[in-house]
Parts: sequence; C-alpha cells; structure tokens
Amino acid sequence: MYLIADWRRTHYSEEVIPEMDGQEVILMGWVHSIRALGKLAFVILRDREGTIQAVVPKQKVDEETFAIAKKLGKEDIIAIRGKVVANEKAPKGFEVIPIEIRVLNKADAPLPLDPSEKVAAEIDTRLDKRFLDIRRPKIQAIFKIRSEMLRSIRKTFADGGFVEVNTPKLVASATEGGTELFPISYFEKEAFLGQSPQLYKQMMMAGGFDKVFEIAQIFRAEEHNTRRHLNEAISIDTEMSFVNEKDAMAMLEKVVYNCYADIEYNRPQEIELLELNWEIPEKTFDKITYTEAIDIANAKGVEIEWGEDLSRAAERAVGDEMGGLYFITEWPTQTRPFYTLPHKHDNKVCKAFDLMYKELEISSGAQRVHKYDLLVENISNMGMNPDSFETYLEAFKFGMPPHAGWGLGADRFAMVLTAQDNIRECVLFPRDRQRLTP
Amino acid sequence: MYLIADWRRTHYSEEVIPEMDGQEVILMGWVHSIRALGKLAFVILRDREGTIQAVVPKQKVDEETFAIAKKLGKEDIIAIRGKVVANEKAPKGFEVIPIEIRVLNKADAPLPLDPSEKVAAEIDTRLDKRFLDIRRPKIQAIFKIRSEMLRSIRKTFADGGFVEVNTPKLVASATEGGTELFPISYFEKEAFLGQSPQLYKQMMMAGGFDKVFEIAQIFRAEEHNTRRHLNEAISIDTEMSFVNEKDAMAMLEKVVYNCYADIEYNRPQEIELLELNWEIPEKTFDKITYTEAIDIANAKGVEIEWGEDLSRAAERAVGDEMGGLYFITEWPTQTRPFYTLPHKHDNKVCKAFDLMYKELEISSGAQRVHKYDLLVENISNMGMNPDSFETYLEAFKFGMPPHAGWGLGADRFAMVLTAQDNIRECVLFPRDRQRLTP
Repeated sequence: MYLIADWRRTHYSEEVIPEMDGQEVILMGWVHSIRALGKLAFVILRDREGTIQAVVPKQKVDEETFAIAKKLGKEDIIAIRGKVVANEKAPKGFEVIPIEIRVLNKADAPLPLDPSEKVAAEIDTRLDKRFLDIRRPKIQAIFKIRSEMLRSIRKTFADGGFVEVNTPKLVASATEGGTELFPISYFEKEAFLGQSPQLYKQMMMAGGFDKVFEIAQIFRAEEHNTRRHLNEAISIDTEMSFVNEKDAMAMLEKVVYNCYADIEYNRPQEIELLELNWEIPEKTFDKITYTEAIDIANAKGVEIEWGEDLSRAAERAVGDEMGGLYFITEWPTQTRPFYTLPHKHDNKVCKAFDLMYKELEISSGAQRVHKYDLLVENISNMGMNPDSFETYLEAFKFGMPPHAGWGLGADRFAMVLTAQDNIRECVLFPRDRQRLTP
Repeated sequence: MYLIADWRRTHYSEEVIPEMDGQEVILMGWVHSIRALGKLAFVILRDREGTIQAVVPKQKVDEETFAIAKKLGKEDIIAIRGKVVANEKAPKGFEVIPIEIRVLNKADAPLPLDPSEKVAAEIDTRLDKRFLDIRRPKIQAIFKIRSEMLRSIRKTFADGGFVEVNTPKLVASATEGGTELFPISYFEKEAFLGQSPQLYKQMMMAGGFDKVFEIAQIFRAEEHNTRRHLNEAISIDTEMSFVNEKDAMAMLEKVVYNCYADIEYNRPQEIELLELNWEIPEKTFDKITYTEAIDIANAKGVEIEWGEDLSRAAERAVGDEMGGLYFITEWPTQTRPFYTLPHKHDNKVCKAFDLMYKELEISSGAQRVHKYDLLVENISNMGMNPDSFETYLEAFKFGMPPHAGWGLGADRFAMVLTAQDNIRECVLFPRDRQRLTP
C-alpha cells in the first residue's frame, strides 16, 4: 500500500459537478469523516479545494472495497476511483460511488488536534501542531490569500519595470543604528543576520538598476513580545531612482490597491470563508502629516510632544480617528534613520512616511539622502562612526542618483488583508523569543 | 542642486526614436562620456536601458547650459530637458539638444573602477566595487536575465496551482544530516541557519497544501572554495502531494523550459549583449540512470564504483558525454538523504534524481518517504537520532500523503542561463569563506 503507482488525481473535490454523472474520477485526500452503518458507509474526502462525499453501499461495491471503507479512520490518506452519480438528494446534487479505494497512508488515533472540530485550540497548541492546524480550511485560506498577495505584489513590480534582486542576509556589520542584531559565527569571523536590505538596495541605485525590489527574510533581535512583532519576518522592499518620496508613496498605493483587486478576483472563496468585510480601497489613500497626527493624539488626551516617535497610545488614537489605510508624512528628522532626506527649507522635518492601517504601521519609506557629505554628517550626528559604513558610503561618491523607497511588512500586510489580530496567524512557523520550533 | 523637484524622466534612452523629431523629453542618468570642443560639447547619457547622445552647441543653448555641459565629469548624475532633433548623420538617426541640464549629484574622480572601460578588472576588485561593476551593461544583463528567470519560475508555479510558502530560516536543529550549519545565538537559546526548507515543505504536505513552492535563502557552512559553491545561496524549492518522482521531474522540465522561452521573449537584448548561444531546450530532457552514468565514467577512464557519490571527475566525464540538460536517476539509496524513498522491488536503489547541465548539478529531487516507520528506520540507519526530528516525524503519523519534490539552485541555474563559469558572476553580493563584504 505504499506507492501511488499508476493512479493520479483527475479532479479536486470542488471540480466534480452533477453534470459529470456517469463519469469515472480519481480523488485523493484525507478522510475528513467516516460513518459506517450496517450496509452503507459514508466517506467524506477532504483535499485542498474542499470536501466531497463518497457513498459506499455494500451491495453495489465489491467486498474488499466495502471492507476497506468500513475500516477507514479519520485523517487517513486515501485515493478513490469511482463513478459520479447525480442524486438530487445528495448535499451537492451528486455522490461518488467507489469502484476501488486505496489507503495510501494511515493516521494514528487520537489526533493531537482535530482539523474537523469547529472550535480552535489555543494558538500555542495550534502552532506546535501546525501541520494539523493548517488542514482547517479557514487557516489554509489565510495562507492562500497570503500567497496571492505575494503574487500580486511581484506582478505590480514586474509590470512597472522593477528588477528583482537578492541581497545577502549574512552581513559583516550593523546595517542601521538602533535595532538589535543576531550574531553568527561565520568561520573565523563574526557576522550578523541582516535586519533590512536597506543599504544594499541603495547601493543598487548607484549601480544603475533604476528600480529594484526584493521580498525576503529580515531578522531582528528585539525582545518584543507583542501580537505584531516577530524576530524573523518577510519584508517587501523596493527602491527607485530619480524620484522623490511622493512617487514612492504612489507606487505603494498601486501595490496595495492591486493586492486587494487581485485577491478579490482570484480568492473569492477564501474571502467568503474568512467572512472578511472586503472592500477594495480607493486608489489613493488619505494623508496626514506627523504634526496633524500629534494634534489628533493630543485632542484625544494622549500626552505626546512634537519630536517624539508615536507611542502605542498615540497610534491607537490616530488609528481610531483615521480608520483604514492612511499615510503619516513629514516626520521629525530626529525620529528617522540617518539615510532619510531632510527637507531643504526646514531640516527638522524629513521626507519620510509611514503607511498605517488603523493603528498598525505596515510600511515605512522615504526619499533618501543621496549626497555623500550629508550622509556622513547624519551618521556622525546620530553617534555612529562613518568608518563602519565604508563600503556603503563609497557608493555615494561616484554617481548616486536621487532615490526613494519603502519596506512593507508582508506578515503585517497579510494580517490586514485577512483581518487577523495576531501576526502569528499569518506566518506558518513564527519565530519569537519563546518559539523556535517547529 | 539636490532635489529633482518637478522633473521626472519622460523616456529611457532606448525609448527615444528619430520619429520623435521636435518633441521635448526629460532624460536622467549617468554621464557615460563627455567630449567638449571649443563651441560644442557631446554628452553621452547612460541609463538602465542604454545610452543616448546629447549635442550641446554653444550658439544654440543658453550660456549657463553650455557652461554646465562643459564642466560635466564622468559618472555625474544628470537630468537633461531637451528637444529631439532628427539627424541622419547622428549615431541613432537623432540627437538631443538640451534646453536645460541639471546636475543632480557629482562623481569623484578618478573612479576606482571605470564602467565605460572595455576590459573588466579582476573579479575580486569588481566584487569589492560592485556598485560600479554593475553599471556595465553586460554585468547588468546577467541580473536582468536572473530577475526574469525568477519571474518565469514563479509564474509556472502559480499557473500550476502551487501555493507560495515562507518557511523559517532560524531553526532549532539540523534539518538534514551531513551539511555543516552556521550557529546563531538566539536570545538564551542556540539556533542554526536553515540549510534547506526540506523538512518544512514536507510538513506542508501533511498540512494539505497539496503543492507548494518557496524561493529563499539557504545557508551552508561548507568550507568549499570553488566556482560553483557559495555559503549563502537562493534555492527554488517545491514539494507536491499524491505524485511520484516522475511527476516532480516533469514539473522541473516545465519550469526550466518556460524559463528559456520567457527569457528569449522578454530579454532578447540581454541575450544578444551577452552573446549567448541561446537555444530553447526540448520539452523533455534526456534521462540516464546512475548505473549508466557510472558506466560512462568508467569507459572514460574514471575510477568509480557503484554506490559512491559521483566525483568531480565522474561528473566531468558524464557531462562531456551527455552535454546540455539531462537527468541522472535511480541513485543508490546510500548516497541520498534519509527522506528519499527506496524502490520497493530493490531498496538499494531509490527514487532520486539530479538535473545536470553538462558537468554541473543544478537540481536534486526525489519521491520522499511518507511512511513513519520507514523514516525512523532510515534516520537510525544513517546514525542519527530520531528524537531530534520529533516535530518533523510527528507530521508523518497523522495523515501524510505520498509526495515528491526538488530544489533548484537559483544561482547555478542563472550560471547556466547566462553562460558564466563562476557562480559569483550571478550573485550581486556573494558570500564565501573569504568574502563577507560589501
């Protein structure tokens, strides 16, 4: 019973319809449920696309097939070769009468987590048994939408003439100030895991790629323990030359808008299954300045002063007021990394933006500094040593175009799209301070 | 001079044609070359798509524009607003007469590496100054083809109904026997960098995703120093349920074939620029068994016995004989990892395959073991402890379908497509034992 031999699936469960009456099909999947009466067995087979009912009447199938059907257990792996029989009384207007059933693999009982149960277990149990958890159609729907999100985003980039790049995740030194790094021992040397492709994508602008994108892992050794942070995440990064922060924001609007449109078109069943209150956003999003955000927060009783980074309380107050997708622009220069371009007319304010969904920051971007001298000055002013940025800085000396870009958190954007309030729901195998397995 | 303000590029260099005579354009890019005579300056501007000539006659432009043009230096970043003037004697049948030139950033002189020089520097110098190296159109062509390769592969997967997954790169223990791992300190715990998504993609099969793919970094702490190994690489991984190794090979043929077809269609200029001897392969590739490969090697005087992994000498002998793309199938079980399914009729031989291009292995795959008992036995037989595979093994106990898959080395496949003989040519910032920067 261990090879599938000459059998191949002819249809997913959802592809079989009453109009196929009389046709022979081969179905493969899991035993979702089994009900064996005296002379009749009902087997519901589940595959990625749904479930389908096979009816096994003792007098219509051969002896062995009936015996196999009666002995099936929950979550066994089976293949059914059978005939579609239209039947108005059956749930979908047809049933499948098996000609032959093969058991391709058995499942032990009891299951540590039952995919057919209505009530979900605690998230930690579910993540420990993720392979069982993702058999639940609602969980799988999250990852089908996530997959379509990534497909859509790459298509928008490709259609816009962006070149996909792969930048290294093993790096010799900190790429930005502030964020904590994971150290690695790299043969005889010390190395770190990249916390962002920021410096590399900027160097690509000096390299003349004009517009690039990368979707890849980032690693941050922050000791957060929240519902919106992980220590390993997927970042959607882009950088483009000869544009300013407004062009970068327009590209972000396009990427996000297309995602909603593509998911609506390609994943309607998953939207329905997750009971999402789905609405394609406007093609341009609301924009408020940082100063306006501070005013909103203050008006709602949150104590925060101009120049501080937005606290959680401030984000909540502003998210409450704004709802949905909106940009916060014109940030105080002191709140942003050294590579952010300050305004010429007032260098206390810089050309940075965040894209928010309600109280959740999902993307950060800016027009970048492209002048060598200003960059060196900024690095020094922030208390870092320009010497440790040598290979990066060199790229600014020999022809660096003006450029802008952003990073969009894939896991956070997936949270928004699937209306989840814990980032762990949108990551197959999340990594946080406590969790390193499975 | 530091903001691009209201100017935006209207055309890339290659988009301007003589038929646009009289039209105003804005071009942006690098000063590829500058030749200033007494009353005339020739500026060749280079952007991602090519080069374009601007002619600056003193008597036809205003004084400031002529002064700016005369002071331009190699690799300065400029924007030219000008008029297209058809001129049969000009290189492309037209020239651009500037109305205004803006210098957006200056380049220091001398350049540590000159992108306009015909003869390339040594690879190490080039990699040290990668941002200058990739300004050379031939180098950029490699990465444009690589980007199209990735786009094409994902499209083949998406069209085939594969779900894209992201599996973790921070792992608690070795995923396979043998290969060396990079250790990380992960807060209070020890962790490692993933050397392959193998175990995760198999767990996804137990999860019911049916068909998945992932394109992501893999990390191997091997002390190789060759032209075909790196310590950080991009792996194109897939796993599919209810199929055998032959189906997996057919999918690989489709992925590879479509790549050639898509690159031919979408990147003809880069194929020409790299002078590639381009040929779309047949839709199915030659297949020889491991035993036949050994016979070929022996016949060519290479000493190798049945049961050994193919040595470099054997690979060269076989590659010589076979040429192009071909599979080696039916490997001795002892040469493959524990998760490879042995044949039922002869368990010394297993359902594994390699895809080769001449002497270079570019992909490895197999039908996998889906039976818990056999897997535990294999792990023990290979001298490893099944307890350290606990979360992986659990996925085989509760309904694991038969499955098969492969990993295709993105960097190696890019070598094949662009006819490079050093993997470092196809990776923007390669990582090897010596190199951790830039």
